[in-house]
Amino acid sequence: MIQEYNPQEEGRLMEDVRQRGIVFIGAGNVATHLAKALSGRGFRIAQVYSCTEDAAQALAAVLDAPCTTDLSAVIPDAALYIVALRDEAFVRLLPEIVAGKEDALWVHTAGSIPMQVWEGHVRRYGVLYPMQTFSKQREVDFAHIPLFVEAVSETENRLLKELAALLSDKVYEADSVQRKSLHLAAVFACNFTNHLYAVAEELLTKYGLPFEVMLPLIDETARKVHRLSPRQAQTGPAVRYDRNVMEAHLQMLAGEPAWQELYRLLSDGIHRMASEEINNTKQP
Amino acid sequence: MIQEYNPQEEGRLMEDVRQRGIVFIGAGNVATHLAKALSGRGFRIAQVYSCTEDAAQALAAVLDAPCTTDLSAVIPDAALYIVALRDEAFVRLLPEIVAGKEDALWVHTAGSIPMQVWEGHVRRYGVLYPMQTFSKQREVDFAHIPLFVEAVSETENRLLKELAALLSDKVYEADSVQRKSLHLAAVFACNFTNHLYAVAEELLTKYGLPFEVMLPLIDETARKVHRLSPRQAQTGPAVRYDRNVMEAHLQMLAGEPAWQELYRLLSDGIHRMASEEINNTKQP
Repeated sequence: MIQEYNPQEEGRLMEDVRQRGIVFIGAGNVATHLAKALSGRGFRIAQVYSCTEDAAQALAAVLDAPCTTDLSAVIPDAALYIVALRDEAFVRLLPEIVAGKEDALWVHTAGSIPMQVWEGHVRRYGVLYPMQTFSKQREVDFAHIPLFVEAVSETENRLLKELAALLSDKVYEADSVQRKSLHLAAVFACNFTNHLYAVAEELLTKYGLPFEVMLPLIDETARKVHRLSPRQAQTGPAVRYDRNVMEAHLQMLAGEPAWQELYRLLSDGIHRMASEEINNTKQP
Repeated sequence: MIQEYNPQEEGRLMEDVRQRGIVFIGAGNVATHLAKALSGRGFRIAQVYSCTEDAAQALAAVLDAPCTTDLSAVIPDAALYIVALRDEAFVRLLPEIVAGKEDALWVHTAGSIPMQVWEGHVRRYGVLYPMQTFSKQREVDFAHIPLFVEAVSETENRLLKELAALLSDKVYEADSVQRKSLHLAAVFACNFTNHLYAVAEELLTKYGLPFEVMLPLIDETARKVHRLSPRQAQTGPAVRYDRNVMEAHLQMLAGEPAWQELYRLLSDGIHRMASEEINNTKQP
């Protein structure tokens, strides 16, 4: 359903967002960082909703905005509503969330929820997915966070891209299938990676060593893939399939069967990719 | 077997290393980067041995040093021999490597091989383990690489620490058990992490997206654990145990059973650690 693009309409919409402000549905990590970034670019956050009183108040205080824990008390006259809830809560509450505000522009921030979730509920909608790991204890610079935009029509698409470009120099369009794969890839490259850091920390603690000795290695591992593809950058006993080392490591993990299983699976994956590389190189 | 420490003896040994030079047994990634770093600090690399002609010549050329592929042609009069071979080759060739050079100082660079491997073969020995991921295509700055030192006696220990301190500002002592756990932790935090980057790259490629969109997230994931512990830094669907997202991800991985298994194991690990955190916080 692509509508014809109208630049005057887009200018009017951005002005409308500036005037009537933005409501945040959700006050978790994504909502907190995105709301702060928008507020920092001069947008007025008109209200914050969260089902958790503490979360609603904490974010509202930072933004100098009113807050509510009652969905029916969410103001109906904002120009843009940004929903950043857990996926499950969002889908469950959707009809209640949009009730009486069907003419506003609605955006969600979830990697794995297709844009079509809005269909039949509201008319003007889209997605603004910031691909980053947000923790409340840590400030982030939005300027370099990739923002992925999708919208129901060209007018909304341009508006969201313009809005995103005010926050970041990395704005992309991505459809719902691409966004879902981005989210899955991000789970591997960020969430799972961080868990491996946590395993490393536990192993070091067990032997009286501080986690900080690991930081130069962690940094270099991340820096390397700016220049080499991850396949080229791979090192370690599994790529050489050094059985002695791997057996010794598995023995050290004897008390942690889940980590042994992880060690085997990851080593096999590394070895499989390394073998493919060699075979590819050997081909004429 | 701790001998009494003698500062004069140590000064004489360092002078000896400078005069008679260092031989590298091995010309792989670790040997290449360590030899270059030592050469850059004014040490003379007297010879390079590798069983692979190309590797021996490539490293020797950079160092302006002679090379050999014949163990019996390794010169006997260097002051320090640094062995950086695959673990399996090192252990197998050890008697042949040291033959006729039993009075020199011998050092290996392997994380997982105990120092005692030298016992009964040579008299003066130790370990210099640089904990970093080395690829030949990529220069590294040795100045911030953690170097872990162990030696058979106090004199050799001080010499190796002094040598290490010329290369890096991060020199630690670690015994063989600690070093083995460092190596295991490094496999998780570096080798396995890099494999997760490689999985992410394949997923993105499949959906027509460039790996580079992942770099800001990878960088922030690494930066975060400089300030927060990995447990505190954990985010994503598994920490919330968002079943809808996790099920959708597993479906997207349907063609890759090994990645599905990895997804399940890592998600369970994340959830287990997150539950422990909550329980710990709840305790009085």
